[in-house]
Parts: sequence; C-alpha cells; structure tokens
Amino acid sequence: MTLIQEKVNQAIEILKEQEIDMWLTFVRETSGVRDPVLDFLVGSGDLTWQSALIFTRNGDKIAVIGNLEKDALQRLDVFDELTGYDTSISEPLRDTITRLNPNQIAINTSRNNVHADGLTHAMYEILRGHLKETPYVDRLVSAEPIINALRGRKTSVEQARVKKAIEITDKIYQSTFEYIKVGMTEIEIGAYMHKLAGEYDVTFAWPADSCPAVNSGPYSPVGHTGPTDIKVERGHLIHFDFGVKYEGYCSDIQRVVYVLREGETSAPPEVQRGFITVRTAIEKSREAMKAGATGNSIDVISREIITDSGYPEYPYALGHQLGRVAHDGGALLGPLWDKYGESPNQKLEVGQVFTIEPGLAVPNFGYIGLEEDVVITKNGAEYFTTPQTEIVLIKG
Amino acid sequence: MTLIQEKVNQAIEILKEQEIDMWLTFVRETSGVRDPVLDFLVGSGDLTWQSALIFTRNGDKIAVIGNLEKDALQRLDVFDELTGYDTSISEPLRDTITRLNPNQIAINTSRNNVHADGLTHAMYEILRGHLKETPYVDRLVSAEPIINALRGRKTSVEQARVKKAIEITDKIYQSTFEYIKVGMTEIEIGAYMHKLAGEYDVTFAWPADSCPAVNSGPYSPVGHTGPTDIKVERGHLIHFDFGVKYEGYCSDIQRVVYVLREGETSAPPEVQRGFITVRTAIEKSREAMKAGATGNSIDVISREIITDSGYPEYPYALGHQLGRVAHDGGALLGPLWDKYGESPNQKLEVGQVFTIEPGLAVPNFGYIGLEEDVVITKNGAEYFTTPQTEIVLIKG
Repeated sequence: MTLIQEKVNQAIEILKEQEIDMWLTFVRETSGVRDPVLDFLVGSGDLTWQSALIFTRNGDKIAVIGNLEKDALQRLDVFDELTGYDTSISEPLRDTITRLNPNQIAINTSRNNVHADGLTHAMYEILRGHLKETPYVDRLVSAEPIINALRGRKTSVEQARVKKAIEITDKIYQSTFEYIKVGMTEIEIGAYMHKLAGEYDVTFAWPADSCPAVNSGPYSPVGHTGPTDIKVERGHLIHFDFGVKYEGYCSDIQRVVYVLREGETSAPPEVQRGFITVRTAIEKSREAMKAGATGNSIDVISREIITDSGYPEYPYALGHQLGRVAHDGGALLGPLWDKYGESPNQKLEVGQVFTIEPGLAVPNFGYIGLEEDVVITKNGAEYFTTPQTEIVLIKG
Repeated sequence: MTLIQEKVNQAIEILKEQEIDMWLTFVRETSGVRDPVLDFLVGSGDLTWQSALIFTRNGDKIAVIGNLEKDALQRLDVFDELTGYDTSISEPLRDTITRLNPNQIAINTSRNNVHADGLTHAMYEILRGHLKETPYVDRLVSAEPIINALRGRKTSVEQARVKKAIEITDKIYQSTFEYIKVGMTEIEIGAYMHKLAGEYDVTFAWPADSCPAVNSGPYSPVGHTGPTDIKVERGHLIHFDFGVKYEGYCSDIQRVVYVLREGETSAPPEVQRGFITVRTAIEKSREAMKAGATGNSIDVISREIITDSGYPEYPYALGHQLGRVAHDGGALLGPLWDKYGESPNQKLEVGQVFTIEPGLAVPNFGYIGLEEDVVITKNGAEYFTTPQTEIVLIKG
C-alpha cells in the first residue's frame, strides 16, 4: 500500500469517527495556490482546472477533474470513481454531490490551522455558485477537525521518515560542532551545514536562507533570520536552529554550543544556569504530555519554569507539531494568544509529533534555545531526538 | 536595484494608473499556504504569523509582521516602515490602515486568476474581523487587476530569465533528439531529459513527474501525465511538452519528432498535413497578437484553422502567460468556457509572455502539439523560441 492510499483510508476512518458524511477538497491550478492536503491525497503532482476530491464516510473515493488529468490520477490507484470534464465542472460536481446526498460537506477552511485552510475565498464563492439552488450550499462545514487528525496521527511510515530526518540532522550537527573555529562567520558555518545536507541528499525543513539559523554571541539577531557575518569569538554561546526534509518529512532541532575562553574548562555559571533551566523546562513539559491533555496545559509548565527562574517570557509557543512541514499545524503547545487562535486548546493525540523549544538569553553570552522532537504514544511523550543534556564545549 | 525592489516600484506605478489607494497582502504560515504574490514582494522566504504587506499609490511600503521576522524583512531593503508585534496583529494593522485612510483596499482574491487569489476564505474572514467597526471593512476590492498587470508586464530582467530558460530547453531538446532510438521507452527518454536538466542546473517548470510529457505513437495518453513504458517504434510521432525554471522563471515548449519507417525519407502525407496545420495556426495567431486585442480573439483564429482543416477541436486554451510558473495567469488566449472565467476577455499588454500551443491527433501515428513562446512588444508578438518549422526526423 502506498502512503497516499494509507492516508486516504485513514481519512475515511476519521470521517466515520467524527460522523461527517463527506469531505470535499476543491482546488484549481495548484501550481499557483496549493492546498496543503493535496500532499496526502494525490502526492506532489498538480491539478490544473477546477478539481473536486471527494471522500465519504461510506468509503467513496471520487475525483471530478479535467479530462486531461484523468490518466495521471488513475495511476495513483486511490480513486474508485474518476469523472472527467472539458469545459465546466459545475454539472458533474453538482450531480455527484446530489447522488451522494451528504448531510455535511467538510471543506478546507480553518481559522486556526493554515494546513486545513487551502480553500481560497474566491474558490469558496465559486463552490457556492456551483451548489446554488441545492440544499448542499447550506451544509458546508470546516474540515479542520478531519485534517488535524489526518496530519497529526502519523502512521508508522510517517514516523519512520521523521526519525530518519532527525538522525541525519544529528549527524550534521556533530560534524558541524567539530568544524567550528574561532573567527569563522555564522555564514561560513551555515554554508558548511548546507554542504553536509547536500551530501546526505536532503532538502531543508524551511527556506534555506534561514535554515540553519546560527547565532553567535549576544548581538546576533535571534528569530526567523539567516546567519550573518558576525564572527565566532571566545566566550560566545552559539545557538542553532536547523531541520531537514527527508522523503517529505521534517526534523526541527535547536542546539547550543559554548566557546571556551582562555583558561576555562567549562561554561560560566550563568550560562550553565540558563542551560539547566531550559533543559528542565523541556523535560518537565515532556513528562506532562499525554493524549487528552491540552497543548496549553503543557505550554504553561515550561513558561513558568523559565519566568520563575527570573528570565523573561519567550514571545513564542513552546512547541508545534512536526510533519510534512516544520510547523505542521493542529494542536499547539502554546499560550492563549490571539495569533494562535484555538490551537492551544486542542487535545494531544497518539501519533502526533511535537517540538519542545523554550529559550532564554544569557546577557553578554548569547541565546540558549534547545529544541527536542517527541512523539505521543499510549505511554506519554517519547523522545525522537537524543536530547542535548550538556552544553557542547568548543576550545577557543 | 534588486528584482523585488523593481517589482514593488512597478506595483506602486500600477496603483497610480488604476487609481487604487492601497494594496494589502494578508498572509500567515506561508510554508503551508503561500500567496503567489509573495515571490514578487518578499522573495522565496516565508512569513510565519499573520502578516500584512501594504503598498499605497502615495508610495508607502509598509509591513506589519511578527517581531521575530523584522530582521529578515529589513534585509530586503524594500519596506520603509516595519511594525512588529508579539501577540496580535489586530491593533497595529487597524492603526496603520486608519492612519492611511484608503478609499479602496485591494486584497488578493480573484475568481479568474489563481495567482491573484492567495487569500484563503478563513483569512478573508479574519481580516474582516480585524477591521470590524471601521469603515474599511466595506472598502475591500479585488487586487486581480493589479496583480495581472504586475505579473504580466515583465521587466527586462524577467524577460531575460525566460529567454535563458528557453535557450536551455532548446539545448536539452536537441540533445534528446540525437539520443532517441527505436525500442527506448518514454520513461527512459524522460529520465535522460532530467539528467540534462541537472547538468544545466535548472529545475522544472511544473512537477517533475510530468515534465517532460513524452508521448510515443497513437496510444500514449496525451495530457498532464508523465512518460509511460510505451516503447518508441518506427512510424511513431513522438510528442514532447517540456519546460525548465531558470532563476525563478519558466519556459514551456512542445516539440514533435517522427520516427521513419524502413524506406521512408520523410513523414507520411497525413503527418505532414497535421504538422503544417498546427504550424499555420501558430503563425496566424502570432501575427494577430498585439496590445489591446483580447485573448479570445486570438484563440478563435487558431481554433478555426484546426477545425476548418477537419480536425477535432482541442479541449484546451490556445495559450497562457508564462513567467514564475508555466501557467502564469491573467489574460489567456482561450475560448469562452466556464472553466476559464473572464481571462479570455482580458486585453493583451506589452511585456506579457505567452505560449501558443494548438494540437491535433493524427490517427495511427500520434499527437502533434507544437508550443512556441512569444513576447508582446509595441510591434506585436515576437518569438522568444526558435519556432519548429519542420518535423524532426529520426532514423528508425
């Protein structure tokens, strides 16, 4: 069974569980705007004209598509019914939906999860136009719960790919730590990591110009920004944020290194204290993670450990799901801030893979951010990464 | 000046010309759903949290974005004003719009052009929420005319990139024609073209598994589908559809080859007749293309030449614009079919690059589809490709 067939079957099980009659993915010219769920339903290929991919809780797998794309879709061996058209999808789409007569039609629109939000506003209006004067125009609901479950509950094949991406990322980190010398720029270090990724034949978990992030010392801008020409100096904390994509699945790992000053054999106490605080926040959060807990209840644990230790609150969520993209959407280990919508209130489920990534700045030294990747199992959260438990020391 | 700076300045000129006060691109987590205009406004990088990119006819260039992404955007040297936020975009966005007090706010929603349709339905609703109880919620208009002009009117830098993509595609075709032997499968030929593309360090104009399309003989499925294990035989027409992407800009070219049977020194009369019909349809269409003509008026010319010669009507548009993607949107050389919306009624403009690609099947031999790329100048349409004027003959 292909991964696409496996995920489509999983989608039908989710429709049964959530008691939704029909899930309709409605797209066009996906080279322009691509609905993220297409990766699961048809793979990496594009659809050109208005296309409807329909799945029902009865197990129907139907595509209504341009005639010129029937062959390509047929080859996937996913759809039991392929209806082609030349000039307008309107009639075959309306006929198909009328025949199936669903009580709810879930469509890909979501305020909370961008990965469940592939339907553009104009396509929403076009769909309503196709269905006008039918009862179905009033039966549209959000497919967010379906897509959250489908993306979140990783099959064993998906988990194995994330693990492999993590394994490769680890190796790249180890080689990089051996490579770093005082006087190198962040850009040089980033370029070396790119070279290693090429040797492992992987791409990046987010756009290459900010993957990795490399922050050497206290003045390097931390955030979604690329390496700068700041040079590594003795007494710098170097912070990394890096991930690769292996067969469509991502890793996302932060690591920290300290460059010893002359005479030092370990990091200064304030650096060690910062490291232990972050490490503790991760471990305590992981221990609390289990199916049924809300993401917010986990975020609170880490956030309090950081602030109770006297550090400022980090202005981002503790962790996000990891999958086909680094920020995979759905349940979020996050604070209840407007920008995160309802995602922090969602409950954790078995099979979800999360990052845990608190951080803090140590004045005069640099940034400490650690990021571990974990999977939710029946027994709680298990590490996919080998956690960083000590600061990596580099001789100056 | 970078290409991004050049296109942003062009956008402001277009706002003046179209008398639109403000253009607002509103996005989030663009690794999930990516508004196609971001390529022009910020390049290949992603934006994570709700972000507003605002341009006005007065020349304002403003971004309201997550604080962690200010540095990355600052580096582009495009925006005069960067407002960062941590928890919610709502207030800074509303304040910025209120201060500028636009009469119209163009947003990226379009029934006709997917490349002007990057705003999802939920983001449209979220935007309306941010603007509720302000007069601006009722001033939203479609940015389709702005984006059509911005994408369509290629600058000299953009035209040069398309030309270079075409040049590389031509070379790949020439090498491929020398490589083809009777007994090879379509898949082998496609793999060879992929290898050549790798040597030229280019990617593909559409997803690799159907780029190139290779159709050998009368039974190969023509359309948006990849090569099959059908083998090249004597007496086959081989049809190719292929394009590459060079520095973000695409080529899109179809070519045909005939495999001579024993004793033949030229293609059979019915094959030649088909070829000449397609070639004539292209040339007559090109001659009629000029700024101000509608795309439909050009489509009609080719369509009639094909059908008046006794061939069935091809079930697709005569040609589309070419740019950052193979199907670049906006004005279309197309029939007035529902699936094409209003695009065939739009007028051609100087600087637009179009494909011209009629086709027909020759029973028992295969498919003849030629595709040339042209640019609209003040003097009409000029070829960017070196047109195929004779069938390429391969010894059997």
